[in-house]
Amino acid sequence: MFTGLSAFPLTPVINDTVDLDLFTALVRRAAEVGADSIGALGSTGSYAYLSREERRRVAEAAVQAAGEVPVIVGIGALRTSDVLRGAEDAQHAGAAGLLLAPVSYQPLTEEEVAGLFEAVSAASSVPICIYDNPTTTRFTFTDELYARIGALPHVEAVKIPPRPVAEAAERIRQVRIVLPADVALGVSGDEFSGPALSAGADVWFSVVGGILPDRALALTRAAQAGDADTVRQLSEQLEPLWNLFREFGSLRVTSAIASQLGLVPQDNLPAPLRPLGEAAQVRVGRMLSDLEPA
Amino acid sequence: MFTGLSAFPLTPVINDTVDLDLFTALVRRAAEVGADSIGALGSTGSYAYLSREERRRVAEAAVQAAGEVPVIVGIGALRTSDVLRGAEDAQHAGAAGLLLAPVSYQPLTEEEVAGLFEAVSAASSVPICIYDNPTTTRFTFTDELYARIGALPHVEAVKIPPRPVAEAAERIRQVRIVLPADVALGVSGDEFSGPALSAGADVWFSVVGGILPDRALALTRAAQAGDADTVRQLSEQLEPLWNLFREFGSLRVTSAIASQLGLVPQDNLPAPLRPLGEAAQVRVGRMLSDLEPA
Repeated sequence: MFTGLSAFPLTPVINDTVDLDLFTALVRRAAEVGADSIGALGSTGSYAYLSREERRRVAEAAVQAAGEVPVIVGIGALRTSDVLRGAEDAQHAGAAGLLLAPVSYQPLTEEEVAGLFEAVSAASSVPICIYDNPTTTRFTFTDELYARIGALPHVEAVKIPPRPVAEAAERIRQVRIVLPADVALGVSGDEFSGPALSAGADVWFSVVGGILPDRALALTRAAQAGDADTVRQLSEQLEPLWNLFREFGSLRVTSAIASQLGLVPQDNLPAPLRPLGEAAQVRVGRMLSDLEPA
Repeated sequence: MFTGLSAFPLTPVINDTVDLDLFTALVRRAAEVGADSIGALGSTGSYAYLSREERRRVAEAAVQAAGEVPVIVGIGALRTSDVLRGAEDAQHAGAAGLLLAPVSYQPLTEEEVAGLFEAVSAASSVPICIYDNPTTTRFTFTDELYARIGALPHVEAVKIPPRPVAEAAERIRQVRIVLPADVALGVSGDEFSGPALSAGADVWFSVVGGILPDRALALTRAAQAGDADTVRQLSEQLEPLWNLFREFGSLRVTSAIASQLGLVPQDNLPAPLRPLGEAAQVRVGRMLSDLEPA
């Protein structure tokens, strides 16, 4: 399951209410293009902002909308007991895998993060992916900690954060050395993903896959076919998008793209998060209209 | 109300359950020593980890235990609607003031943080304190943002993060210039507090006040009396404590002090947070036994 393109859609939150119909349409759209899995309730899916009940319903809607495509569900929370409840709910909803970031308020120690994964590993019967996203969790994994947690039962993947493109091949090589052989190596982020897939990463946990799934799939398939030139070309076409991600963060840009594509209203994030301002919206629109057909 | 010593007790969480009896005893202890206010559900009170229902009961218990002493209640949450519910619950519980940190998962913009405070300002009828704690929120306030939010109705205090001791007087002067005249200037943190109080800060939002209230009160009263030498002396006596705070974070050290004083069991934090390890516990014990009588 942790292979190819994993598409992470937004969870539209309209007037402080999750809109399951809009969400279902986003999931269907990515599944129909041919994503290998759907990632519900990732960072792009605003999981951290949602209540237990909201998350439960989003997970159920994702599984229903994805059809045959497996669904990975994000379960991160500040408190271990909430994470365990989320894991239980996600499995009841039919999740094929779990995505766990060590969300923090007090900065966490390595032992605390290892203990969190041990607790979830012991309570789960589906595969777990380590979600390393220091921008949102403010926890920095060492490679040794990947190895330690990767050795736990049910831990079958890691999602590593981006590095500069020039370091992609070397970074994939480094992580592969420390990871147990049966743990898939996943990438997220932006312009790092193409070269990382070309260098042998197994799976792209992709915000682009959730909003421009045809483009993300073409890039993924080219990488899987060993066609590094096409990967480079497709990734370069997305350079204006990567620039917007860098400047405004991928969530707000994705939110703007979704509204400009007519998939959601403009105000679709949970407050206090806000839509991009007008100038940035114009740049998103120009980026979209400049994109060559996929 | 935002004056003198505001004592922030732990919220003991034993086996994933808030222990209101232990919490009540901690509040009484600080109130009886003579703290000017009690800060319930601060970072030291683990508010970010607690459910709405748990927070409601903690706020009620604090108000009951504090007697005549006013209680400030922390209401931070990732989602604005949860913050507003927290503000409502805290006011129903009898809070005399609210403490609001811009808790984040996605890094927040200035506009988003200002919008959050505008929403709470519009919904509150008790004074609000801006809680600036970049270590846990990962949001950095500018002085201009203090000024902008400080001008909102009901915003009557700001709790600024520590700086190096040598900068205390200058920092207090800088913030005082930008703050509206009716907004109290509060400090938190550690060795910064004494000199900052001597330099004219109005209130010490104090984790030490929650666990060693006699010492925090002596220091506060000396500062209020303009006795900078005594402030310096009392703060220097606490140097081993400041060192432990720097090394392990104030929450875990305070948790260890509370257990070594027999006020709570050793494991009193919400998982995944863990008590200090054995070597650090020994150092906490040595620090406590080396303290001269207050």
